Amino acid sequence: MKRSNRLVVLTDYFLENPRQHIKLTYFVELCKTTKSSVSEDLDIIHDVFQQQGKGYLQRTTGAGGGVQYIPEFASEKSVAFITELQRQLEDPVRILPGGYLYMSDILGDPKMVREIGRVFASRFSNLEIDAIVTVATKGIPLAYAVASFLRVPVVIARRDPKVTEGSSVSINYVSGSSRKIQTMVLPKRSLKEGSNVCIIDDFMMAGGTIAGIKSLLEEFNATVKAIGVLAEAEDEEERIVNDYTSLIKISHVDLQNNTITILPGNYNK
Amino acid sequence: MKRSNRLVVLTDYFLENPRQHIKLTYFVELCKTTKSSVSEDLDIIHDVFQQQGKGYLQRTTGAGGGVQYIPEFASEKSVAFITELQRQLEDPVRILPGGYLYMSDILGDPKMVREIGRVFASRFSNLEIDAIVTVATKGIPLAYAVASFLRVPVVIARRDPKVTEGSSVSINYVSGSSRKIQTMVLPKRSLKEGSNVCIIDDFMMAGGTIAGIKSLLEEFNATVKAIGVLAEAEDEEERIVNDYTSLIKISHVDLQNNTITILPGNYNK
Repeated sequence: MKRSNRLVVLTDYFLENPRQHIKLTYFVELCKTTKSSVSEDLDIIHDVFQQQGKGYLQRTTGAGGGVQYIPEFASEKSVAFITELQRQLEDPVRILPGGYLYMSDILGDPKMVREIGRVFASRFSNLEIDAIVTVATKGIPLAYAVASFLRVPVVIARRDPKVTEGSSVSINYVSGSSRKIQTMVLPKRSLKEGSNVCIIDDFMMAGGTIAGIKSLLEEFNATVKAIGVLAEAEDEEERIVNDYTSLIKISHVDLQNNTITILPGNYNK
Repeated sequence: MKRSNRLVVLTDYFLENPRQHIKLTYFVELCKTTKSSVSEDLDIIHDVFQQQGKGYLQRTTGAGGGVQYIPEFASEKSVAFITELQRQLEDPVRILPGGYLYMSDILGDPKMVREIGRVFASRFSNLEIDAIVTVATKGIPLAYAVASFLRVPVVIARRDPKVTEGSSVSINYVSGSSRKIQTMVLPKRSLKEGSNVCIIDDFMMAGGTIAGIKSLLEEFNATVKAIGVLAEAEDEEERIVNDYTSLIKISHVDLQNNTITILPGNYNK
């Protein structure tokens, strides 16, 4: 295979298989070429990925030597993305009765969701996370987006147990804002004991749901290495979760003047 | 930019932006090169994508001329993927009490989910679909995977309305297997009137849920162009949905002998 063709094949391979360690010999066979040619190809791809702020190729030498693609957004790209998100969310047509903000279009756009996932995965890249945990429903697409860049599975806690998932562990927790008692369930089989996990959700007010997930995860002896929320509400005095990363903060929805104030979250701090 | 670098940049661009029509002049500027060089790059990428069974670059000429990447899995790749899925699902450790099949690990693996999405998107590639519709919860990741290849939004019907999505349309429907009356809700704002939609779900027994989505979509004057389900149950005599595409068919779960029989769905027919 010629270099030009190899570069297309290899670029495609890395983008489809982030964080997968591949031996160089695999690519040598795939491309019917020599080890030194593959090695030069990897240098080119590495350099372009770096220039583009897309991450890098991590090489290991020796007998088991190989390469893996670590997707990491350059931090200025993350900041630019968050600024754009902020701008989109400030559109007053988003105001719903009760002062809620319509975000389903953004959460329904696979490209936006993928970029949100990339931003979180870049931040959590070195935490050796084993699984992403979320609670149904709105955090699910974000959880998959983050998981796809970290190459780990997604585990979904539910508010109602499903008979088709086998035995489950459940807890009751108090929702922070409404003070209602709620139930959350995780199938026993879904998470290995002692995993390092990252919790992902779309929105956090006081943090009751996330505190609920944390309690549930204790039953699995899991270590919560990171918590990522797309949007947090501002001025929650009774916040019960502190160690989180948010992309944006919904500061104020002014129903009288029909304006929305969105601030960057703590991601950039 | 040299050809080798351009090929990495362009391959990355196409994979991240399927079905997005781009003018050649955009790439000319991005890569600081000439139109004829870009044109040659596109020929190389097109040829490799075709050889790899990954789809093709569609070019348009004239003043508004440009290119878009159409991701389409070669059908032998889809068949191979379905065979592998079948093999994985036949593992007897999946048998749950009541004869259910544990599939959450497969639905929790972002790579598997992406491939399932690619297989459906390849089949539904020419149907001019405007949106993917699913119902919470398990179909959600599959819906996003299909949507990412077709570059359309995902719309999620829920069994409980959320106050944060504004006014909604709801219907009651009879679940096919349990004969229970259930409710399904779709926010008014989530789907444009008269859209062409594709329904995606993880599992279909008699088809009650999908029939419910169809009724709900009538309220939006939507046209259901395709229905994709990952798994269907066999021998459902009272099936109320017929025009669907399934990847696999769960034929028999034998609790006595601890065996599972999985057949290919109707995808390959």
